[in-house]
Amino acid sequence: MHRTKVRIVEDALDANNTIAGANRVDFDRAGVTVINFMSAPGAGKTTLLERVVTDLPGVRVGVLEGDVEGSMDADRLAALHIPVTQLNTNAGFGGECHLDANMVRSAIPSLALDEIDLLLVENVGNLVCPAEFRIGEDARVMVTAITEGEDKPLKYPLMFRACELVIVNKIDLLPHLDFDLEKLLYNIDAVHPDVETIVLSARTGQGLEPWREWLMGTAARTNQEAIA
Amino acid sequence: MHRTKVRIVEDALDANNTIAGANRVDFDRAGVTVINFMSAPGAGKTTLLERVVTDLPGVRVGVLEGDVEGSMDADRLAALHIPVTQLNTNAGFGGECHLDANMVRSAIPSLALDEIDLLLVENVGNLVCPAEFRIGEDARVMVTAITEGEDKPLKYPLMFRACELVIVNKIDLLPHLDFDLEKLLYNIDAVHPDVETIVLSARTGQGLEPWREWLMGTAARTNQEAIA
Repeated sequence: MHRTKVRIVEDALDANNTIAGANRVDFDRAGVTVINFMSAPGAGKTTLLERVVTDLPGVRVGVLEGDVEGSMDADRLAALHIPVTQLNTNAGFGGECHLDANMVRSAIPSLALDEIDLLLVENVGNLVCPAEFRIGEDARVMVTAITEGEDKPLKYPLMFRACELVIVNKIDLLPHLDFDLEKLLYNIDAVHPDVETIVLSARTGQGLEPWREWLMGTAARTNQEAIA
Repeated sequence: MHRTKVRIVEDALDANNTIAGANRVDFDRAGVTVINFMSAPGAGKTTLLERVVTDLPGVRVGVLEGDVEGSMDADRLAALHIPVTQLNTNAGFGGECHLDANMVRSAIPSLALDEIDLLLVENVGNLVCPAEFRIGEDARVMVTAITEGEDKPLKYPLMFRACELVIVNKIDLLPHLDFDLEKLLYNIDAVHPDVETIVLSARTGQGLEPWREWLMGTAARTNQEAIA
């Protein structure tokens, strides 16, 4: 029984990877860099996007919002006058806890890929399943808020491994918490040695510049790769 | 295709409910009240348990710890000299994002049910899937930290509906956040009218008494029901 279950899961991931590859071809053809943006609920993903999407010189940004229900984050971002598409995962069941390649594929026709250079995909808030499903992205970023504690890399290692950048957010609250930043950075490095990290506060703006530069650099690099 | 998927999911939930019923019979027979304790990662579940498990007069407490990986929370609670059992969900795949009835069933032989009155089950940190899987519990409690924002009930309504008590934690950070407590309570009531709420700080101890009383009352009530 157990083996059968594992087999079904592997097949599902194989199918997902095939569709992710098709998404990737479409994104590359349109010259659009795609970032898959993941975190626990309430880590500050939307605020981090609000802070930069209109402030990347020469890069036209679009957003794909993944939520179980509602369109509150999409509404916040649309208010900044950038193209935003909402994807809800609640169809048919209590709600999928992650985006998969097929959900993203279904959104592609409404994404206006010829009008953007960089697509930021805000995944469902969850530290487990989003890490298991590629969506055709160029890079994966995860956000951990210091209010979540130092132990999260050790408890959700796959998520911390499945990304090229870890953003440590809400650093403005450091004086008000029993929290050891060095310990968090040590734990991140323990599960994903040498992964790039940026420590910042989306609320106060402290440390936003490296985040902006990372996005600019990634957009420029992947675009060059697609041309070459 | 879609209909097939829904059918499989329904079958899985039917099977889960059957096993949850069997768990419930075992818990009732042993006179143990079971609480399913859920939240996003880092909302403070373990600290909330640490704060009360040795301070419930006449109630012997045990804990079942659900984590994708590791035993850090179990170690924290075992240090308080109460019976703690660890359940890891990472077997076979990248890790299940929730506890289900069968996982809990597999832990029953190691739970020492005859030595406890109240079993607190700390679920995997996740605001989506744990709400969909009954485990044979008497009551479900969810914790939301004010650092997660006011919008979580609207974005993860099933979780806020699937519980008898909502604990609002980290209230000590209120002066340091752009956060509207009334708005959160309004949103909780909008998705789950009249659900009981307790506002507290596990860190400072503010508001812990109602939480302790709720646990004592629930343990006494369900025990009476089991006898009757």
